[in-house]
Amino acid sequence: MQASAADAVADTATDTVTDAVAGAVTGYSDRLGTVHPFGDAAAEQRVRSDDRNHVFHSWSAQAQINPLPVAAGEGSTFWDYEGNAYLDFSSQLVNLNLGHQHPDLVRAIQHQAGRLATIQPSMASDVRGELARLIAGVAPGDLNKVFFTNGGADANEYAVRMARRVTGRRKVLSMYRSYHGGTSTAISLTGDPRRWANEPSDSSVAHFFGPYLYRSAFHSTTPEEETQRALEHLENVIVLEGAPTVAAIIIETVVGTNGVLVPPPGYLAGVRALCDTYGIVYIADEVMVGFGRLGEWFAVDAFGVTPDLITFAKGVNSGYVPLGGVVISDRIASFFDTVSFQGGLTYSGHPLACAAGVATFDVFERDGILARVRDLGERVIEPEIASWLERHPSLGEVRGRGMFWALELVRSRETREPLVPFNAAGADAAPMAEVAAACKAAGVWPFTHFNRIHIAPPLIITEGELRHGLAAIDAALTVADRFAG
Amino acid sequence: MQASAADAVADTATDTVTDAVAGAVTGYSDRLGTVHPFGDAAAEQRVRSDDRNHVFHSWSAQAQINPLPVAAGEGSTFWDYEGNAYLDFSSQLVNLNLGHQHPDLVRAIQHQAGRLATIQPSMASDVRGELARLIAGVAPGDLNKVFFTNGGADANEYAVRMARRVTGRRKVLSMYRSYHGGTSTAISLTGDPRRWANEPSDSSVAHFFGPYLYRSAFHSTTPEEETQRALEHLENVIVLEGAPTVAAIIIETVVGTNGVLVPPPGYLAGVRALCDTYGIVYIADEVMVGFGRLGEWFAVDAFGVTPDLITFAKGVNSGYVPLGGVVISDRIASFFDTVSFQGGLTYSGHPLACAAGVATFDVFERDGILARVRDLGERVIEPEIASWLERHPSLGEVRGRGMFWALELVRSRETREPLVPFNAAGADAAPMAEVAAACKAAGVWPFTHFNRIHIAPPLIITEGELRHGLAAIDAALTVADRFAG
Repeated sequence: MQASAADAVADTATDTVTDAVAGAVTGYSDRLGTVHPFGDAAAEQRVRSDDRNHVFHSWSAQAQINPLPVAAGEGSTFWDYEGNAYLDFSSQLVNLNLGHQHPDLVRAIQHQAGRLATIQPSMASDVRGELARLIAGVAPGDLNKVFFTNGGADANEYAVRMARRVTGRRKVLSMYRSYHGGTSTAISLTGDPRRWANEPSDSSVAHFFGPYLYRSAFHSTTPEEETQRALEHLENVIVLEGAPTVAAIIIETVVGTNGVLVPPPGYLAGVRALCDTYGIVYIADEVMVGFGRLGEWFAVDAFGVTPDLITFAKGVNSGYVPLGGVVISDRIASFFDTVSFQGGLTYSGHPLACAAGVATFDVFERDGILARVRDLGERVIEPEIASWLERHPSLGEVRGRGMFWALELVRSRETREPLVPFNAAGADAAPMAEVAAACKAAGVWPFTHFNRIHIAPPLIITEGELRHGLAAIDAALTVADRFAG
Repeated sequence: MQASAADAVADTATDTVTDAVAGAVTGYSDRLGTVHPFGDAAAEQRVRSDDRNHVFHSWSAQAQINPLPVAAGEGSTFWDYEGNAYLDFSSQLVNLNLGHQHPDLVRAIQHQAGRLATIQPSMASDVRGELARLIAGVAPGDLNKVFFTNGGADANEYAVRMARRVTGRRKVLSMYRSYHGGTSTAISLTGDPRRWANEPSDSSVAHFFGPYLYRSAFHSTTPEEETQRALEHLENVIVLEGAPTVAAIIIETVVGTNGVLVPPPGYLAGVRALCDTYGIVYIADEVMVGFGRLGEWFAVDAFGVTPDLITFAKGVNSGYVPLGGVVISDRIASFFDTVSFQGGLTYSGHPLACAAGVATFDVFERDGILARVRDLGERVIEPEIASWLERHPSLGEVRGRGMFWALELVRSRETREPLVPFNAAGADAAPMAEVAAACKAAGVWPFTHFNRIHIAPPLIITEGELRHGLAAIDAALTVADRFAG
């Protein structure tokens, strides 16, 4: 009985996979089907049972989740055990910039694993030095040294530590509507509800409002006004918190999870000027937007500013091996020439992770990834989603850049009331859950947050896949329209 | 000129490698020499130059270090670019439990990289669930769920967060002479000088004295007395800090970097009892001693106690891919069935890292790693180093268990004055630097800290390698003897 049920599923699965592969996977579809357990109900059951019995999950009430067992991934697509294909429009957690199972990254990891999987941070490693040199080569200004970490959270922790030591000051200013990671200082910097249950953690953090014209904290009506007023507000916060107490300002160059908030022209340059005026270290958090998400190596390149420190993770190697880091200006790096930096970790500059990073540079350059991100963003995504404004009353605003966009869903365009309340859960969040379910039913895995859908597919997505996924989201918005007047 | 210099080095290198291989590498030495750039002076220069120009190092004044370029590693040995072999008596940073380039771990990583390198934490992954099940299977008591992190620091951060949420209390007690990681809460828990420059980070931490009979904080003269007095001290700290304010006590089951301090009989059971009495969560930090270092899966097994949370990293997969985690009791895990756990990270339960963990279990079981650690510890290490007490006046005490031992070096056995002062640097630290240099000159890479040499080789070290390395340290102690009266 079990065998024939599995066979039946397998037949369906094969069709589904074949259909998906035809449109969705290019170049290495031949690897599919041979190793992946599509339709193996016993395997799926084992995965579910191990997960529910033994895996404790992030940011969750453990009995209220039902994690999807994933059987395989290739390019912009992943599959569950029934063989259902999902176009990954969230790049997992906006980390999978080169897609699932990119052959160059896989090969680089396999090769480095066979050479030398790991070596401690106090020794010198060829691939660690090579990746640091490559990153320095594309970083703006005089940011020429790299401190490697395991991910984005500890990158932000150590960037703040550098700023505090160099300035001799302690306070850090960060934005409301931001996310900077889960560890103590990183979660304190965070300006979204994930911070609430974790206070007080690092008590030397104060929050300010960033530019967000659609819901302006400053009653602005134009981007110019928003820039000017947001900078005036930031300077007021600096002055009232006490400039001599402020070590750093940390800003996601484009705010990620909290809304794909693209800074209006002049804002980041104004932040840079304020930091110069008051002797404050400017930290750009590019964990989500670095390494191509905006069609630039670093997102600050799109705005013509040079921070003192840039933090990164995710896209540096698409998260194939945990890796993050801080790119450091000469001024700050040289301070630590004779003063010991009091921070570190066993896996700093992990060779296996760095090898995947070096391969990422090779692929970006060979395949013109940055140019294709800009092209697809301008030529395909922006005109397509802008056209939806005419047809979907639930669509309040679309915004973004490159391969990173937000659809802000509302109950009313006039009042701009969000489709679901801020930080909604349970029944309050149902309308967004319905929209997400409609996307998934159409084979597109969306990134949703509060009242927004984000569009953040792998940077290697084909134009056909991209248009296919956008059409599915377009269709799903009719669900949202039912709640909008 | 350059070519012939390189050739000359290469000749030497080949001899050195061959000699080293003969004694030091078993089973896969055929892979040596084909891929590794021994004697390639240009390659070495490139590694040095990339490192010095672009890599920012942990816990260092950047201009005052000279990182050794490492060309290759196999088993218990690694090689520099000149082909000099070093027996790795520190297992890198006490993480390389299965040695360099273990073929089973390399194969597991290569295989998983080809299957599915990564998948986000909110989905279910076969290999993540499998490793969680395996860990739960060897964890004591009802510790049945695993929250995976990137390393030991964030494992401790999140263990503390769980304890705080479950108890509704905030304070954490940790030991002087301890290390718990580099991020904000982890460094606050730390009881060694690495904390000093990072205060205040997490202000809700208080430190107490643990048992350390050789330098007793309690004027004890026997292990029994040390246990009784250390527990009395801990209870006094709990009472005076206010038991209703104390969420957790965190203890390295055997204190690692700060001295291989093995708790005397009854101490950890007493800690467990105090935690029960006062409703405090007992966190065992086994980042360094978990996964076989003591000849047990978890070090608490050697002492017959069951903590509420165990944190791990390093040995779980020998650090081949960054991985850490928290093993969670049913009582604490079930609290979060309906209450959301407010913590998380992109790479939680990373499939590539977990695959190396699953392979670690296979190797441990197939090769009887735990039994061989206990055997080599009892039969080879302990009697050998104990015999040195007769010959080396600089040797104040030897202590340890399994594959984890400390040699405490002193200027005088009577006064127990350390060979170098606490936290010595520069000229003050010179005697220890000379001892370390003597070890390295003899081809053994030691772990040194303050006035101690630790013996912490890979658990797969052969008996011949182990005896060879111990003989080199024995010889190097004559350098220390010159400073002892």
